[in-house]
Amino acid sequence: MDNKQIILKKRPEGNPEEANFEIQAIKTPEVEEGALLLKSVYISVDPYLRGRMRDEKSYIPPFEIGKPIESSVIAEVLASNNSEYNKGDYVHGMLPWKLIQVHSGNELQKVDKEQAPLSAYLGILGLTGITAYVGLNKIGDLKKGETLLVSGASGAVGSTVGQIGKIKGCHVVGIAGSDEKLTIMKEKFGFHSGINYKTTKDMNSAVKNACPEGVDVYFDNVGGEILDAALANINRYGRVINCGAISLYNATETPKGPRHETTLVKKSVKMQGFIVRDFKDDFESATKQLGSWLQSGELTYSETIKNGFDTLPSAFIGLFEGENKGKMVVKV
Amino acid sequence: MDNKQIILKKRPEGNPEEANFEIQAIKTPEVEEGALLLKSVYISVDPYLRGRMRDEKSYIPPFEIGKPIESSVIAEVLASNNSEYNKGDYVHGMLPWKLIQVHSGNELQKVDKEQAPLSAYLGILGLTGITAYVGLNKIGDLKKGETLLVSGASGAVGSTVGQIGKIKGCHVVGIAGSDEKLTIMKEKFGFHSGINYKTTKDMNSAVKNACPEGVDVYFDNVGGEILDAALANINRYGRVINCGAISLYNATETPKGPRHETTLVKKSVKMQGFIVRDFKDDFESATKQLGSWLQSGELTYSETIKNGFDTLPSAFIGLFEGENKGKMVVKV
Repeated sequence: MDNKQIILKKRPEGNPEEANFEIQAIKTPEVEEGALLLKSVYISVDPYLRGRMRDEKSYIPPFEIGKPIESSVIAEVLASNNSEYNKGDYVHGMLPWKLIQVHSGNELQKVDKEQAPLSAYLGILGLTGITAYVGLNKIGDLKKGETLLVSGASGAVGSTVGQIGKIKGCHVVGIAGSDEKLTIMKEKFGFHSGINYKTTKDMNSAVKNACPEGVDVYFDNVGGEILDAALANINRYGRVINCGAISLYNATETPKGPRHETTLVKKSVKMQGFIVRDFKDDFESATKQLGSWLQSGELTYSETIKNGFDTLPSAFIGLFEGENKGKMVVKV
Repeated sequence: MDNKQIILKKRPEGNPEEANFEIQAIKTPEVEEGALLLKSVYISVDPYLRGRMRDEKSYIPPFEIGKPIESSVIAEVLASNNSEYNKGDYVHGMLPWKLIQVHSGNELQKVDKEQAPLSAYLGILGLTGITAYVGLNKIGDLKKGETLLVSGASGAVGSTVGQIGKIKGCHVVGIAGSDEKLTIMKEKFGFHSGINYKTTKDMNSAVKNACPEGVDVYFDNVGGEILDAALANINRYGRVINCGAISLYNATETPKGPRHETTLVKKSVKMQGFIVRDFKDDFESATKQLGSWLQSGELTYSETIKNGFDTLPSAFIGLFEGENKGKMVVKV
């Protein structure tokens, strides 16, 4: 069987482009005792991967030039020399971008095809959904009746954040980059109101109008001037959940902006970044709660599915161009 | 008896100056049933008072033009029509800047002259000491063996922060604005090392050299470029305690600087402002612990005492010129 992988050929400078990647034909090794043969079925593309393409120290090592990119993957077990897995099982894990691969079986989770569509385990029931859940509960301490502002609000994490806010009885306002996204946010995900940052001249006033009682919790996926507008309207004891800063990830110079420390001091505000992987103890309860909301219909999700292994680079690049409406996934 | 008060005459623009204040002769009212007659003995001057001189919404209302400034005061009870207080008692409370005043007796605490010098209740055993204690424990969650960086390190709060860090078994580095202050920090307060920000060209490298294992907790009294240098060297899971931002309080335009949200996201860093008054439940235990360290000699303090009620405006102005070495107090 023909096998392929996608490697990091060159580190991106600014926006990622096709030339940063290369698709290579590879051989499939033997399946040794205890190992599995896996076939990738769905592969997740995520903004945070941009960070691993930089050559700098971080909580996970950077991708190496000439080695395959790695992300969350749903795979089918084609053959198993490991008693814990059977041929035909589906598993979820952090895997390299390969069509077929041999795996030790360590750090994989089995997923149930009957309970939810397979791709949901990369999104609403995977790290995406858990990120929203853990961020709001463990970092944001969101309480009933508060005002919740979310950026990247039509995206995979953002749309889940907004819906959890609604379930919790909060006033939920989303920020996104097109009127179409705003419509989806409101009609599909039930946000109370939305702001199109691309057509809004004065973000501070727009946030003020949409959040007449101020912002209690801001779930930040983007950073930059949208964060500034959120902090300009933050309430005393406000919490900023620093989940992402996609507006800055491609910056080639140090981005500058207004200083926020006086606001933090004067209003007893907290800003906190987090990595969902540090909350492994909460994964089970989070997935259970999200699955139950999904089944009751209180929670829904969008995904943008690209078809074909070779579309992985363009799907990833599309994340930075606002192409996706919901979780971006490649169906192999 | 001649009585006086000091009012806010004009709101400061930029640095505060003598013309912002006025000393006025006033009459002393009758002491009604249930009330006390108080004579100010020690009056605290603090950087945060600058914030109340601005005409803007905050957690405590701004000072009014034509009305007296208010701060922490130790007063002697000259006469009492209140069964809870006796003539000759000493009390601590938030009081207007008056020589003599009538008071209801509400929200005053008695202080014990035998246990510590009276002025200590405005500093190490007052809000200053409690701010250091609560900030490190409730916001910073400082742990044994961590690296603690403190700015305004020879000041009243900063020197207490550093000493608590030492007691907790941390590597403690202080930042201050003169070599003399650095010497005091190290010799009197036991800091491991110090950085003179006024003579240091590259603060990022200076912090890096002084904190070879990175910064786990940064207790920020100043904001601005010193905060930037701390964040440039912050460790994963680092905590910034935003206690003050004195370098920005006199700014007349919005101060700008590098954006920090990417650091917060990538290193799971927390930045949090707080107001010591929100931790009233911890006051008793904090004061008890601080008093016990004071008696055992593990904790010491500096104070700069100015003499005479009329020196209050110049003592306050001096805070912004680095005049004080430790808690600034006016002896009436």
